[in-house]
Amino acid sequence: MIVLTNDDGFYAAGIQSVWQALKPLEDVIIVAPESEQSAVGHAITLANPLKALPVKTQEHGLIGYAVSGTPADCVKIAVTELLDEPPEMVISGVNHGGNMGTSIIYSGTVSAATEAATMGLPAIAVSLDSWESRDFSVATEFIRNLYPLVLEHGLPEGVSLNVNIPAVPRDEIKGVAVTRQGKSRVIEKFDKRVDPRNNIYYWLAGEMTFMEVEPGTDCEMVRENYISVTPIHFDLTRHDALDRIKEWKLEF
Amino acid sequence: MIVLTNDDGFYAAGIQSVWQALKPLEDVIIVAPESEQSAVGHAITLANPLKALPVKTQEHGLIGYAVSGTPADCVKIAVTELLDEPPEMVISGVNHGGNMGTSIIYSGTVSAATEAATMGLPAIAVSLDSWESRDFSVATEFIRNLYPLVLEHGLPEGVSLNVNIPAVPRDEIKGVAVTRQGKSRVIEKFDKRVDPRNNIYYWLAGEMTFMEVEPGTDCEMVRENYISVTPIHFDLTRHDALDRIKEWKLEF
Repeated sequence: MIVLTNDDGFYAAGIQSVWQALKPLEDVIIVAPESEQSAVGHAITLANPLKALPVKTQEHGLIGYAVSGTPADCVKIAVTELLDEPPEMVISGVNHGGNMGTSIIYSGTVSAATEAATMGLPAIAVSLDSWESRDFSVATEFIRNLYPLVLEHGLPEGVSLNVNIPAVPRDEIKGVAVTRQGKSRVIEKFDKRVDPRNNIYYWLAGEMTFMEVEPGTDCEMVRENYISVTPIHFDLTRHDALDRIKEWKLEF
Repeated sequence: MIVLTNDDGFYAAGIQSVWQALKPLEDVIIVAPESEQSAVGHAITLANPLKALPVKTQEHGLIGYAVSGTPADCVKIAVTELLDEPPEMVISGVNHGGNMGTSIIYSGTVSAATEAATMGLPAIAVSLDSWESRDFSVATEFIRNLYPLVLEHGLPEGVSLNVNIPAVPRDEIKGVAVTRQGKSRVIEKFDKRVDPRNNIYYWLAGEMTFMEVEPGTDCEMVRENYISVTPIHFDLTRHDALDRIKEWKLEF
């Protein structure tokens, strides 16, 4: 059994494309947020209860559950409650919009894969580097190639794969690059407005800027029309800073 | 100017203790969520506008802003909109409850510090390892010692400090340990219930378990009554897995 999830919601075109592509090959189930959950980061829902609505079609019977929570919630509840046995793998996406560079810390798509990895499951997050394109064919073709390799080779403990697909036609894809996470940041801009009762409010209207364009990073390789595959984990320790801070001789 | 934030909300005892401790020493301003935001991870608010309510007291005038968003939102809007010039530092906490091991990926407290680091600012996240204790005196004393060292030495680009304080009296603290992030995971348990209209719903009722108890990790050193200081960053790349995945010879 392979669990499909995302942060764009159960009925988003990206996840439905993956379902269509894998259904003939594997036992798949969608456990995804009932509504869009973009930029929720690695949130989990503690303050409210979760509901998991079974979704059935006449043709296929139960195709999954629409969950009133975040992508990480979906993975947790799928594995712990909804499935009879642990899935072989979790695939998150295809997300509308790339998840590369520093901004992956905001990504619900990536957090679902990371959550699966904390639970000891192989996981892949897949994003299409476009907010406009509705063509998920390259993404789904690549997933069909990749997931058997992940099942065959396994992944190191705690590691998942963050995959980004350039939004170009199949014949413009130059290949696959195993990459590291680049540096990027949203240059923050808030759009300040006044409501009808004279209260000030702000819309976050950021613009993504890539700060690092060296070869080998996810940002750069996708820009060069390579599919990028980045192994990620959830150890945030900056190991090379440990000694530097030890030199401060902190005492208490 | 030092920005104080948290995920327990503007009026939580932890952040108010930091404000009390630093106010005589520094120009400080609180920019914190108007309501509790625990386990929001690194969420940012895109789908809704943000409000930032100025909070004033008769004695001190403007002490800060209560923001209708997440901790990461607070940092973004403080730096980009609310302050006239960039702050010298962001301090997040004191959080009620430890933020150690793998579970820091769920932490709004830690995400505020990480967000500040993405914006090029030195930042410290501080958590008290107890959900019951109301005694933030050790935490605030340690912050008073630590923040001038951070200002003096600086931090490597993109690095922030994740500090955890054992919930024991001052004289039982054994010292300070510079640590790496340990492994822990929440052993998921959902509490399944039925609502008055016969719908099933679930409460996440997880229990934290530490999987790694080697010396040198945050979890272990706090358990041994050391204050832990972990340098963290936002590069999720698992560098030692790059070669292993390159051996798969992915093609497309």
